[in-house]
Amino acid sequence: MLNRVRSAVAHLVSSGGAPPPRPKSPDLPNAPSPQTVAPPEAPRSPPATAGSGSAAPAKTVEARASFSRPTFLQLSPGGLRRADDHAGRAVQSPPDTGRRLPWSTGYAEVINAGKSRHNEDQACCEVVYVEGRRSVSGAPREPSQGQGLCFYYWGLFDGHAGGGAAEMAARLLHRHIREQLKDLSCWSSQKEVSHESLVVGAIENAFQFMDEQMARERRGHQVEGGCCALVVVYLLGKVYVANAGDSRAIIVRNGEIIPMSREFTPETERQRLQLLGFLKPELLGGEFTHLEFPRRIQPKELGQRMLYRDQNMTGWAYKKIELEDLRFPLVCGEGKKARVMATIGVTRGLGDHNLKVCSSTLPIKPFLSCFPEVRVYDLTQYEHCPDDVLVLGTDGLWDVTSDCEVAATVDRVLSAYEPNDPSRYTALAQALVLGARGTPRERGWRLPNNKLGSGDDISVFVIPLGGPGSYS
Amino acid sequence: MLNRVRSAVAHLVSSGGAPPPRPKSPDLPNAPSPQTVAPPEAPRSPPATAGSGSAAPAKTVEARASFSRPTFLQLSPGGLRRADDHAGRAVQSPPDTGRRLPWSTGYAEVINAGKSRHNEDQACCEVVYVEGRRSVSGAPREPSQGQGLCFYYWGLFDGHAGGGAAEMAARLLHRHIREQLKDLSCWSSQKEVSHESLVVGAIENAFQFMDEQMARERRGHQVEGGCCALVVVYLLGKVYVANAGDSRAIIVRNGEIIPMSREFTPETERQRLQLLGFLKPELLGGEFTHLEFPRRIQPKELGQRMLYRDQNMTGWAYKKIELEDLRFPLVCGEGKKARVMATIGVTRGLGDHNLKVCSSTLPIKPFLSCFPEVRVYDLTQYEHCPDDVLVLGTDGLWDVTSDCEVAATVDRVLSAYEPNDPSRYTALAQALVLGARGTPRERGWRLPNNKLGSGDDISVFVIPLGGPGSYS
Repeated sequence: MLNRVRSAVAHLVSSGGAPPPRPKSPDLPNAPSPQTVAPPEAPRSPPATAGSGSAAPAKTVEARASFSRPTFLQLSPGGLRRADDHAGRAVQSPPDTGRRLPWSTGYAEVINAGKSRHNEDQACCEVVYVEGRRSVSGAPREPSQGQGLCFYYWGLFDGHAGGGAAEMAARLLHRHIREQLKDLSCWSSQKEVSHESLVVGAIENAFQFMDEQMARERRGHQVEGGCCALVVVYLLGKVYVANAGDSRAIIVRNGEIIPMSREFTPETERQRLQLLGFLKPELLGGEFTHLEFPRRIQPKELGQRMLYRDQNMTGWAYKKIELEDLRFPLVCGEGKKARVMATIGVTRGLGDHNLKVCSSTLPIKPFLSCFPEVRVYDLTQYEHCPDDVLVLGTDGLWDVTSDCEVAATVDRVLSAYEPNDPSRYTALAQALVLGARGTPRERGWRLPNNKLGSGDDISVFVIPLGGPGSYS
Repeated sequence: MLNRVRSAVAHLVSSGGAPPPRPKSPDLPNAPSPQTVAPPEAPRSPPATAGSGSAAPAKTVEARASFSRPTFLQLSPGGLRRADDHAGRAVQSPPDTGRRLPWSTGYAEVINAGKSRHNEDQACCEVVYVEGRRSVSGAPREPSQGQGLCFYYWGLFDGHAGGGAAEMAARLLHRHIREQLKDLSCWSSQKEVSHESLVVGAIENAFQFMDEQMARERRGHQVEGGCCALVVVYLLGKVYVANAGDSRAIIVRNGEIIPMSREFTPETERQRLQLLGFLKPELLGGEFTHLEFPRRIQPKELGQRMLYRDQNMTGWAYKKIELEDLRFPLVCGEGKKARVMATIGVTRGLGDHNLKVCSSTLPIKPFLSCFPEVRVYDLTQYEHCPDDVLVLGTDGLWDVTSDCEVAATVDRVLSAYEPNDPSRYTALAQALVLGARGTPRERGWRLPNNKLGSGDDISVFVIPLGGPGSYS
């Protein structure tokens, strides 16, 4: 994420300098690292393309200590070095050989143009088996209970101020979801609540438990920074898209665009943030005001009338400037420059437990939410064709690519391949990443229209909804 | 509003009993009552149909002391008695003779079937002239400044637990909006902020000032109860629809339905209410829990697992029942039975400053918001025909009538009149009210399909968007 955390990454932005010392990746209790993770337990009806790349060759310890990439990329030490090269910015995808990702999912990524030492995006794609929870009462189970179920899982994690949180989330969030989904086996006795809303609640709580685990383990294992999380769960005919941050998911179906997420930024969450500052003024530490003004107020303007808006307003009105209005606004800036407490440009995600206001001890975490918004898409309500896809991308993609441009690329790339060619989704993911990265010219990475390409990390999943996947 | 406030209206619901003593309507400082209100100052370019019924015959003091209806209905003492008759439930509209409402707006209303002594809905329709505010600096004005402007205004106010708040809002809210809009004359120097967002801010603040005035004057003048407020402002080509409560506005345009508001109820605002209870637990008084459960927890279930959701969740998950979970939930019930603190079924509006939890001193007002959601519709972006209308209705209409049924009635009624017949919009409003009220049968008021009609007060405005109005 490009400059999302102003204070924390400032020392990394200057290119050419030696990278700062970086702690080893955490090696968490109950949290196997990618090299050692066991393959997912076999689902009851294993899909033909099941597998997650977990069986990829182990990375060398040296490379692992420096940084990691998703195991399903199956990178050799040399490949890992190329993936880490800011100058070449080679696009990475899973190899054509070997097992494909579930559903023939396409994936591509590229490192940033120098804004941080390593690629701070992470990704995960798994088939996860959920064992039913034992009945609390000890009563004998119904035949439908406790047999377990399996879900498909895709996750994109866009780290900031370090790669630790994104790495940890990529390694563990689906396990928290699995743990929460065990409760589904208790469901039959609670008819007031739909199955769907239990899955939503399980995902919401899994995000919270993931965040709490990061808080507990941050000291011993130095989980640095935070990350946005965009997660897809497919279970029993429904696709659940959970987003906490500024990544984005859209479905492109028969050329139509269906938004499956919205971004959580200081602008979109202004009223939530202001309400919190209003109700808990101690969180502002006497340094910030919860009010928003169109520009910074000068001390000489005390007593004059100025436009403002508070936690209740979407429009603007006038007020007389008082002394405390001279404080720095809790939310300020526009677009990609919008910040909470002049520091962070995204308002939901995991981690950031140590994030403080620049040159201050004031914590920012109380203003950040770890809860995702979950949208549900019923796959059975529409007969999908092989060209219908769910596209997930970190903000590196969306900063320079509109939904419509993505839909056009979907159409252009997929029509160049046979409908049953499973490599078409990887080709599409690569085309999307290349289109957002651009090509190197004299003055930086440029798009064909000569506008700046994205200098951020870029990661894209393309999930076919009616393709050659075997999800039935 | 039918049974919206459980405790406060319980004694009114039993029909046949003598009405409880009811204080006189307030006679506020700076708040002329309907009889004495001056006609609006002449707009600079007065529209042909300008006028607001302010010049209607004064009601008798005796009737005024009992209850009031909108002045534009021009009711005689006899008419006022008929409008107050729960048995006949005669539909009321402005007379065919005399000045029409601006834009040939249609209006109709009917009293409830006995749930409260009087019709607690109120309405207002005005053309309001705004004089520019004097420049603060004393600098000479630009020619475009300070010349004033005029806006069209429609308001529906659905009272509960008494008619005082709705009466006061109908009499004064547009004056607060006028006061706030005076700031528009300062606008040219603040290019960061759009004209539209200043109008939105003016309306938002006007609602707040109206609510604060009710709080100040409630003791001396006994402003009883509270009210939902649904307000339309037309200014410089744009229609602003502001809603605080469970009334509803839709545009029916060429048969298409465009929602212009959403309802604010314990269900739709659950997360806002729970967040407030979580951040300010003292507001729950040790009597309520901010958590929601699918059903009331029994003491014997302590320690067992139960579904719940909190302020962050839209789905459900399990938790172990603790002692404080046995408290009554802050939000409970479904649909029209949903309540905050077991008392009130609407979460935004004006007034309710004295509202307490039943058999308790715990105030409910902190959970209620007086701020409307404002939606903007640009009239100039579409060439409207005489059949395109904006329909405003209190929940008495919408409880028994869907948006689609309203659109069908719009089509049926308007097609029976010449497009340039200005009476067609009143006929449409009457048809909508009659369709929601039904006809008296053996077991209450019934719709043609034999379902129960609405026993609530019902009030409807039909505002033509391309009709014979002269708004150009």
